[in-house]
Amino acid sequence: MVVVDLGGTLIRAALANQDAVLSRLVRQETNANHGAETVVSRIFDAIRDVAARDAIQAIGLGAPGPLDSWRGVILSAPNLPGIIDFPMKARLEKEFNVPVFIGNDANLAALGEHRYGAGHGTANMIYMTISTGIGGGIIAENNLFLGSRGFAGEIGHQTLEARGARCNCGNVGCLEVLASGPAIARSALEALKSGRASKLRELASVDARAVTNAARDGDALALETLKRAGYYIGLGIVNLLHAFDTSLFVIGGGVAVHAWDLLYPSMLAVLDRHAMPAMRGGVRVVQAELGEESGLKGAVALVLDRITLNR
Amino acid sequence: MVVVDLGGTLIRAALANQDAVLSRLVRQETNANHGAETVVSRIFDAIRDVAARDAIQAIGLGAPGPLDSWRGVILSAPNLPGIIDFPMKARLEKEFNVPVFIGNDANLAALGEHRYGAGHGTANMIYMTISTGIGGGIIAENNLFLGSRGFAGEIGHQTLEARGARCNCGNVGCLEVLASGPAIARSALEALKSGRASKLRELASVDARAVTNAARDGDALALETLKRAGYYIGLGIVNLLHAFDTSLFVIGGGVAVHAWDLLYPSMLAVLDRHAMPAMRGGVRVVQAELGEESGLKGAVALVLDRITLNR
Repeated sequence: MVVVDLGGTLIRAALANQDAVLSRLVRQETNANHGAETVVSRIFDAIRDVAARDAIQAIGLGAPGPLDSWRGVILSAPNLPGIIDFPMKARLEKEFNVPVFIGNDANLAALGEHRYGAGHGTANMIYMTISTGIGGGIIAENNLFLGSRGFAGEIGHQTLEARGARCNCGNVGCLEVLASGPAIARSALEALKSGRASKLRELASVDARAVTNAARDGDALALETLKRAGYYIGLGIVNLLHAFDTSLFVIGGGVAVHAWDLLYPSMLAVLDRHAMPAMRGGVRVVQAELGEESGLKGAVALVLDRITLNR
Repeated sequence: MVVVDLGGTLIRAALANQDAVLSRLVRQETNANHGAETVVSRIFDAIRDVAARDAIQAIGLGAPGPLDSWRGVILSAPNLPGIIDFPMKARLEKEFNVPVFIGNDANLAALGEHRYGAGHGTANMIYMTISTGIGGGIIAENNLFLGSRGFAGEIGHQTLEARGARCNCGNVGCLEVLASGPAIARSALEALKSGRASKLRELASVDARAVTNAARDGDALALETLKRAGYYIGLGIVNLLHAFDTSLFVIGGGVAVHAWDLLYPSMLAVLDRHAMPAMRGGVRVVQAELGEESGLKGAVALVLDRITLNR
């Protein structure tokens, strides 16, 4: 099968076998601002680059949510302007004449980590990705938990500070506005305004990576900024633990990969201090294992699951 | 079958048929402070008052959590001191020689409302009870969502104010410390300290019911207090909507029953303002329908489910 990861900047596609071994990985610019038809023809090109038409048995595609996974429609995505209520599944099926299944990218990353990565062998797991945004996916009894309409797992959009800043999603004080990459940068810039000394002051621009690098050099302001982000991530995990009683949390995404050693201790301290004692025991928080391949491998799992379900 | 609701103050028991029609309801004092053996003999008495021993085919019992529903062990409950790691299922099975199933009381109330009340006919539902504490239960694809170990659904223990007051559960700024009955009373007393005029000032003691009554008489301070509680309940619902994508929220418990008309407008306003637009549509928040019977009827559903599962 061919699996595709449709991102705001890049389209990635690969050939995959039944064991989710990926080959012939290709990358294309998404050119999202050129509109839906351009994006679709880019996706077609990427798929054709990966495999000859008659060598494709099925296609799995991950895209930014919210999307309707059953009907295969992308409803709207902030970083895919112009793609609104777009019948991606139908368009791909018409072009390639094979079964096509689409899923929310963070949900598919969760599925990938569950089947082939850090969650392998565990029935219940929550995946959280920390990068430009904070998203995730929930695995319950070995299946992706989709909810009433397939939108479940928006775990970055939980209010942790009711009097906090407004989030892009419309909610206030979300985990995403407190601990995503841009939130970490904003928080550091805010702290710099106090006039405190920091290596970050010498930089032309500050992002989460710069804050992480400075923290690793012992910069106190940067260290505090990441500790604060880890605190909020930990609180988010506690909320999810109390609601879902999930004993494995798998954390991925660029920010988590780069700053893991700096975020992890404060995440864990919150879990120890704030989780209900009866629920704390046995709960593990670990790094994702599949990196950039989690979404593509999750698309393999989606295709296999749906073909088995025959729907 | 006989169903039992073990509370901190009262034990209630009833005879139930397969359609969850209850009869011969009896009430006993729990006498929780006399220790586990006293409580157990009180439960035995209540069950014997309901039905002759050879007329009992099965027993379903709800108890304050956290408890291990599969093994039937009450782990610990703040309002049942002395009942720690107590094998309630085993003790009842030994005494009555019939299958016994136990569940968390709020989980069973969720199950009751789903099968026989406000959630009937809906596959996905979240029940929230607002009284001395805030608890709940999650129904996913027509089944009680239990999580890894059966503790799922502690939806009152989600942080909404990271810098808020500590909760009995160990966490901070939980929905329960912001909007439960005692929280509403505390919040009103706090506001009274400012010296503002309020009818509540004339009362010897202030509880949620007094605040509700004053609000209904047009008392501005009481109205604001309930509006604030409704705001936090609404935020809690938004967090759950984003994580579970559940389209029906059923709200029960003494505080919600008594103050529904005062809480509902602000709950709904938060949902309209804060929920992700793609997820807001079609979401309903309604009152529970079964009142005090929800837990007992949920115990019926638990027994029927478990006997079907044969585990």
